[in-house]
Amino acid sequence: MKSTVISVDAMGSDHGPAAVVTGISRAARARPDLEFLIHGDSAILEECLRRHRRLVDRCSVQHSDAVVTMSEKPSQVLRNGRSSSMWAAVDSVKNGHANALVSCGNTGALMAISQLRLKRPAGISRPAIACLWPSVNDHGFNILLDVGADIRADERDLFVYGLLGAAYAKIGMGLKSPRVGLLNVGTESHKGRREIKAAHELMANHADKGSYRYVGFVEGSDIPSDRVDVVVTDGFTGNIAIKSVEGTAALIRSFLKDAFTHTLLSRAGAVFAYTSIKRLFKRIDPRRANGGVFLGLNGTVIKSHGSADPVAVEAAILLAGRLAKSQVTSSVVAELSDWGNNSGALAATRQKASAA
Amino acid sequence: MKSTVISVDAMGSDHGPAAVVTGISRAARARPDLEFLIHGDSAILEECLRRHRRLVDRCSVQHSDAVVTMSEKPSQVLRNGRSSSMWAAVDSVKNGHANALVSCGNTGALMAISQLRLKRPAGISRPAIACLWPSVNDHGFNILLDVGADIRADERDLFVYGLLGAAYAKIGMGLKSPRVGLLNVGTESHKGRREIKAAHELMANHADKGSYRYVGFVEGSDIPSDRVDVVVTDGFTGNIAIKSVEGTAALIRSFLKDAFTHTLLSRAGAVFAYTSIKRLFKRIDPRRANGGVFLGLNGTVIKSHGSADPVAVEAAILLAGRLAKSQVTSSVVAELSDWGNNSGALAATRQKASAA
Repeated sequence: MKSTVISVDAMGSDHGPAAVVTGISRAARARPDLEFLIHGDSAILEECLRRHRRLVDRCSVQHSDAVVTMSEKPSQVLRNGRSSSMWAAVDSVKNGHANALVSCGNTGALMAISQLRLKRPAGISRPAIACLWPSVNDHGFNILLDVGADIRADERDLFVYGLLGAAYAKIGMGLKSPRVGLLNVGTESHKGRREIKAAHELMANHADKGSYRYVGFVEGSDIPSDRVDVVVTDGFTGNIAIKSVEGTAALIRSFLKDAFTHTLLSRAGAVFAYTSIKRLFKRIDPRRANGGVFLGLNGTVIKSHGSADPVAVEAAILLAGRLAKSQVTSSVVAELSDWGNNSGALAATRQKASAA
Repeated sequence: MKSTVISVDAMGSDHGPAAVVTGISRAARARPDLEFLIHGDSAILEECLRRHRRLVDRCSVQHSDAVVTMSEKPSQVLRNGRSSSMWAAVDSVKNGHANALVSCGNTGALMAISQLRLKRPAGISRPAIACLWPSVNDHGFNILLDVGADIRADERDLFVYGLLGAAYAKIGMGLKSPRVGLLNVGTESHKGRREIKAAHELMANHADKGSYRYVGFVEGSDIPSDRVDVVVTDGFTGNIAIKSVEGTAALIRSFLKDAFTHTLLSRAGAVFAYTSIKRLFKRIDPRRANGGVFLGLNGTVIKSHGSADPVAVEAAILLAGRLAKSQVTSSVVAELSDWGNNSGALAATRQKASAA
C-alpha cells in the first residue's frame, strides 16, 4: 500500500513551528502509514525535527523563504505570497506530491491560495469551511458549514453547502443518509431572510437525489443536538456562532477549574472525582474538534486553529489523513459535477422558489 | 413612595400560568415595593393565586379571553389579537396602569404589538432586543443586541443599537462609559459586510457624543470577555449566537451531571465538592440571565424565555422592576431624541462612510 502524504505548512501557528512539528510527531505515532512534507524555514524546521527521531524517515522538509502573517489581506497574499510556505504547501497538493494539506495560518489567505491553485469544480461558485461541533449524536460530532470561507451565500450556495456537508458526513462519519438542517431564527416556514426561504425550497425538493434527509429549519440550539447531522448556514453567521460557543465554552471551563480549586473540600472532591473530571474536560476539549475542512475544491485542505497546540495539530493531521485516504474531496467533486450538469433543473427550481 | 407596577402576561409560558404566578410570588418576596397587574384567563389565574397568599393585596387580575400561540405570525396577531392577554398587557403600559411589562409569549407577536401600541420615538427605525450574557466582567454580564427583533439591520440601525445598548449599560449596570463593540468575523478593518464597515465608521466617529467608548470590531469569542460591555449585531446573527451558546451550555451541563454520577468515586467527589459544584451551576444557570429587553420603544417591555420556570420568571420580573424604577426606557428615548434631531450630521457621516 502506497502511504498517504500530508503536506504541512509549519509556519502559521501562534505557538511557532516547534509546536507544529510536535503535533506531526504525535500524528505519526498514531498513524504509521502517514508521511509528511513539511514547508517553512528549513533551518528552523531541521532544528525542531532533531527532537523527533520518529520522523527521520517519514518526512521531508521543503524550504520556503516567506511566511504569510495573520494580518495580511488575501488579495495581498495572492499578489506577493508565491514564496510563502502556505503557497508551497497548497502547490504540493496541486502537483500530486501530497494527498492533503494542513495549515494553522491565515484562513482568508489559505482559502484564496487554495481557490487560485486547486480551483473549484464546475457548479460550485463558493467553497465552504466545514467544522465539527461536539454533539449528543452517537458519532459525537455534528458538522457545521460554512464557518467562514465567505461572508455571503445565496440560496444556491446554501443548497450546495448542504450537498457538500452531506457528502462529508457520509464519507467522514460513515452515515448512510445524513440529516441536513438549514440554520434560521426559528423553525416556522415564514421566518428568515429571503435567500434562506429559497434555499429551504431547494433543499427540500432535492433531498432524494442528494441522498440526504432534509429536516428543515433548525435553530442555534439544535447545532449540538441529535435532530441533525449537518447544519448549513452562511459563513458570516457560522463564524460568529462557532466563535461565540468557543468563547463561552472557555468561560465555563475556567469556572469549572475555579470550582475545584476554591476550597480545601472542593479540592478533595476533585481528587475523588479525578477520572470523571478528566473525562468531562476531554469531552469539552476544543482541541479534539480542531480542523476546518475546505469543501468544494479539487484537493483536500484542512485549516487548523491558529492557536493550536501539539494535541490540536495532531487532531487536524489525523483528520487530513482520514479524508485523504477515503478521498472525500473527489467524491464530493463527483457528486457536485452531477449536480452541475443538472443545472437546468436546478435553475428551474430556483426560479420557482424565488417566485414563491 | 408610589409603588412600581409590573404588568404580566401570564398565558404565554410553556409551563402554563401556574409557573408564571409562582415566579411573580418569588419576585414579590424579593421586591416588597412591586405590585402586579396579571393578564389572562381570570378563572385559571384566581385558582393559581390561591396558593400565593403573599400576592393577595399586591396584585389584580385583568381577564382576557384569548391567548397568542407560539405558531401565530405577527401579522395575524396584529389583525386578530386585540382580545389577547398579550395585547392587554402592552396596553396597560401604554395607558400608564403599569410601569413595565413581562411576557413569556411569542417574541414576534410581542414585538409587533409593542411597536403598534407603544410606538417608536423619532429617529429609531428598528427597535432591538438586548439580552444579558454571562461574562468575566466585574458586573458578571455583558449586553448583546439585537438578539431577534428584526432579521435585518443597516448601518444606521447598528449605530442606534450601540447607543441603546450603551444607555442600557449605563442605567442597568451603573457603568459610566460603557465599552461598545461591533460583532464581526474578524477584528481587521477590511473584514465584514458593507453595512458593518459603514456602522464601524459611524460608531467610531460618534463615540464622544454618545458617551461610550468604541472598542471596534469584536468576534464571537469576545462576547463573554472583559474587552467589552455591549456587543452590537443584527437580529439574525444575534439570535443564532445566543441560541448556539444556550444549546452548547446545556450540553456541557449534561456532561457535567454525567461526570458526577458516573462512578461511586465521582459521586463521593461530588459530595465533597457540593458547594463548589452548586456555585458553578449557579454561574452557568441560564435562568439568571432570563429577560430580553425591548429597547427603542416608548415603554419598558421584557420578553422572558418561553420555557421559563418560576426562577427564570422571577429574574425577568426583577429586571423589569429595576428598569421601570430607573426609567431606562425614557432615558434612552431622551438620548435618542437628541440624536434624531441631529440627523443631518448623522446623514453626512453616513454618506461619508458609504463613499469610503
